[in-house]
Amino acid sequence: MAKVLTPRSENYSQWYNDLVVKADLAENSAVRGCMVIKPYGYAIWEKMQAQLDKMFKDTGHQNAYFPIFIPKSFFSKEASHVEGFAKECAVVTHYRLMNDPNGNGVMVDPDAKLEEELIVRPTSETIIWHTYKGWIQSYRDLPILVNQWANVVRWEMRTRLFLRTTEFLWQEGHTAHATAQEALDETNRMLGVYADFAENFLALPVIKGSKTANERFAGAEETLCIEAMMQDGKALQAGTSHFLGQNFAKAFDVKFTNREGKLDLVWATSWGVTTRLIGALVMAHSDDDGLVLPPKLAPIQVVIVPIYKSEEQLDLISGVAKRIMDELKQKNISVKFDNRDTHKPGWKFAEYELKGVPVRISIGPRDLENQSVEVARRDTKEKTVIHLTDLSLKIEHLLDSIQKNIYEKAISFRELKTFKADSIDEMNRILDAEGGFVYAHWDGTSETEIKIKEVTKATIRCIPQGNKKEDGKCIYSGKPSAERVLFARAY
Amino acid sequence: MAKVLTPRSENYSQWYNDLVVKADLAENSAVRGCMVIKPYGYAIWEKMQAQLDKMFKDTGHQNAYFPIFIPKSFFSKEASHVEGFAKECAVVTHYRLMNDPNGNGVMVDPDAKLEEELIVRPTSETIIWHTYKGWIQSYRDLPILVNQWANVVRWEMRTRLFLRTTEFLWQEGHTAHATAQEALDETNRMLGVYADFAENFLALPVIKGSKTANERFAGAEETLCIEAMMQDGKALQAGTSHFLGQNFAKAFDVKFTNREGKLDLVWATSWGVTTRLIGALVMAHSDDDGLVLPPKLAPIQVVIVPIYKSEEQLDLISGVAKRIMDELKQKNISVKFDNRDTHKPGWKFAEYELKGVPVRISIGPRDLENQSVEVARRDTKEKTVIHLTDLSLKIEHLLDSIQKNIYEKAISFRELKTFKADSIDEMNRILDAEGGFVYAHWDGTSETEIKIKEVTKATIRCIPQGNKKEDGKCIYSGKPSAERVLFARAY
Repeated sequence: MAKVLTPRSENYSQWYNDLVVKADLAENSAVRGCMVIKPYGYAIWEKMQAQLDKMFKDTGHQNAYFPIFIPKSFFSKEASHVEGFAKECAVVTHYRLMNDPNGNGVMVDPDAKLEEELIVRPTSETIIWHTYKGWIQSYRDLPILVNQWANVVRWEMRTRLFLRTTEFLWQEGHTAHATAQEALDETNRMLGVYADFAENFLALPVIKGSKTANERFAGAEETLCIEAMMQDGKALQAGTSHFLGQNFAKAFDVKFTNREGKLDLVWATSWGVTTRLIGALVMAHSDDDGLVLPPKLAPIQVVIVPIYKSEEQLDLISGVAKRIMDELKQKNISVKFDNRDTHKPGWKFAEYELKGVPVRISIGPRDLENQSVEVARRDTKEKTVIHLTDLSLKIEHLLDSIQKNIYEKAISFRELKTFKADSIDEMNRILDAEGGFVYAHWDGTSETEIKIKEVTKATIRCIPQGNKKEDGKCIYSGKPSAERVLFARAY
Repeated sequence: MAKVLTPRSENYSQWYNDLVVKADLAENSAVRGCMVIKPYGYAIWEKMQAQLDKMFKDTGHQNAYFPIFIPKSFFSKEASHVEGFAKECAVVTHYRLMNDPNGNGVMVDPDAKLEEELIVRPTSETIIWHTYKGWIQSYRDLPILVNQWANVVRWEMRTRLFLRTTEFLWQEGHTAHATAQEALDETNRMLGVYADFAENFLALPVIKGSKTANERFAGAEETLCIEAMMQDGKALQAGTSHFLGQNFAKAFDVKFTNREGKLDLVWATSWGVTTRLIGALVMAHSDDDGLVLPPKLAPIQVVIVPIYKSEEQLDLISGVAKRIMDELKQKNISVKFDNRDTHKPGWKFAEYELKGVPVRISIGPRDLENQSVEVARRDTKEKTVIHLTDLSLKIEHLLDSIQKNIYEKAISFRELKTFKADSIDEMNRILDAEGGFVYAHWDGTSETEIKIKEVTKATIRCIPQGNKKEDGKCIYSGKPSAERVLFARAY
């Protein structure tokens, strides 16, 4: 197998696209902006789902399912929400096709026009809060802690596999609370869950913070986010958690009788992560030879490749492989034995590097004699010879150590690419030369934020949680500022 | 908690609807024909999904994800497919809303009309076979064994929660094979998986068979199905598996080089089950007091209700409950301790009967003295007193025995309601008086099948697998027939 990827240094964006397609993660479909998630890519999503779902349930949430369609009028009920989503909606206007009388296949039946158009959900706050009105009468009905796994559609003009697609898969949590404080606590708790998931499963260090008013979710009073750094130094928003105040309760008239017997509007949060995380995973860790997957999310954690000349050798190797597989499976390690005779070992090595399988075991006739195998780790490409007696325990430790190493490498990279700038020029110099995260003073206004974006192409990714207070002057307006905020060019 | 359900004997259909809503399984949404699946209903779907997904993977399948939208022109490519689905399609024609210049909220932006309309998938054969064309060149690329968990939309005119909804959730398997035999084997294998799932998890006995040409999936050469009997004697199709021949390969030009080096069209299957199975589960086993859930699919398998007068008593009971819960959880039995002080024990008993929790444990002060608890099973309502020392083992056996009993009850009921008829009059008499399954002779023509439906409201549910050959005369035409087929009125 020849080198199949454009090197990162040559064209990072092309490298990403090559990798997603060549590693069989996803491909573009016949429908503009929609992707096909292929089995190997979907297997990563399933691993993410399983872990997140467990974390949601451990924090008291239950799953439910709401309709994919939202009546058009629902969107107008929350003013900033419609402003944020109206421009990118897929609209269902008819409910039937008919044979084209001119014989050109099928056409939309003009008699089957809907009285009110339906929007394919870009997010579900409106239909869910319409539903919650029926579920909530008293404080005893609160909190409602519901999550939904679903597909959503946003009509994006420029799309890229996983990072920005017209249809994507996600989860959306929608919770209802009796008090503002409880909703704020939930908003923070779920940000914490996302950060935990990103760091401990995606091996992706993240900065937790608040979005500026400009960058908030349409309809939110506060948007919290986690921001990660990709290998080209750009930022990627990896999850958001919104405090929605009473905005949707107001829009859909959802009131409850509180403990004091008085009617009050319900407080809301929503929070979500998407298949974009697969893009983040690829861009954060992988290299010019292919994917580098953290073991906790790798569909195949260990692959065994036999090296043989005769059928007899293969039989002996298969016996050993079988034993190794049994031992690994007992430790819940997923393992594949690739005994295909259609491909040479070297071809297989390259293929599993491309696919990011964390550990490769190869077994040849000499290994059999020595009762050992050769073990190669994907992240560092180091090889060691390990005796069979210790193997499964050593592999278990190796997987842990790979998971940790990938994370630490990402942390070191981020540290290397994190800067301070005290002027627009300095920020531009840094971003042009190095990319990365730049901490700088800002006067707190939306106008300045927009101007800085115009001249640097960088946005305020967040105001980090626990940010150090530090007096300074805004790099654009020179007005006083009490803290540096996090700027970056972003996906 | 008063009786909340219309009795089955009074109005079976109303009983079903009452139960689905009152047991918090689902409700109608603001969108015509679309339902909200509530957390308790969704938890049952999650249990079904987990089991089916395991069975699909054990038979070598992988999950993937294809776009929700299908270009309109794709539908015209397979003639009978478009015929079957064109009448019930949600059609996306625009991709943007705008503010209504007259100030009436938002309207569809007429400038944002799609060049080609998109259909919200009613099923995915077309988009998937368009994709498979890129995946298949040689016999080495086959078989492709892919499944998708997804939402689909069919614009049904008359809808009922779970049984027939505009949007529903399902899985759709789509496989590609080098030979007709392999595809036929797959079609049969997946029917077997469905039957196994229905009988051993839903506790629902099913008849496996083939559909007549009239009732085949649009685009299939053969449709296999499993048919179950509901408590009103009506049949419900609980799963289908289609042999698609080379129809979709033809329509989308999917050819491969076979082992002999010649180009050939690829053979296909598709198979699916839907959230309709939740409706089947409800209608097959439940009673006038609520759901009766087979333990293997019950979100909560055991509930513990404390009976106490003082806080001190509650503390003591809670200690025992905690120990019981730990023991049950160790056996992977899901258990809930309902220590709410807002409701009386009697109210809780009724609530968990409504929700179909298979086993209820109640603990009062006298039980504490005796080191025992009262155990009630939902299916038969029998109560027994069990000593704490044996409890978790006995509960485990009890759950098995409930699972088995529910299945056997359904089998007995089906036997009681299965008849033979040798004339149209006899069939009508049976169906009017008893409902149920009627085996009768049929001349094998579509015309006769349609006529019989007109005069009896019964359809041919299937030609059962392994059907006994028996010479006879068609009950409608009097023409010769070689076997009886299965008729019933159906959902």
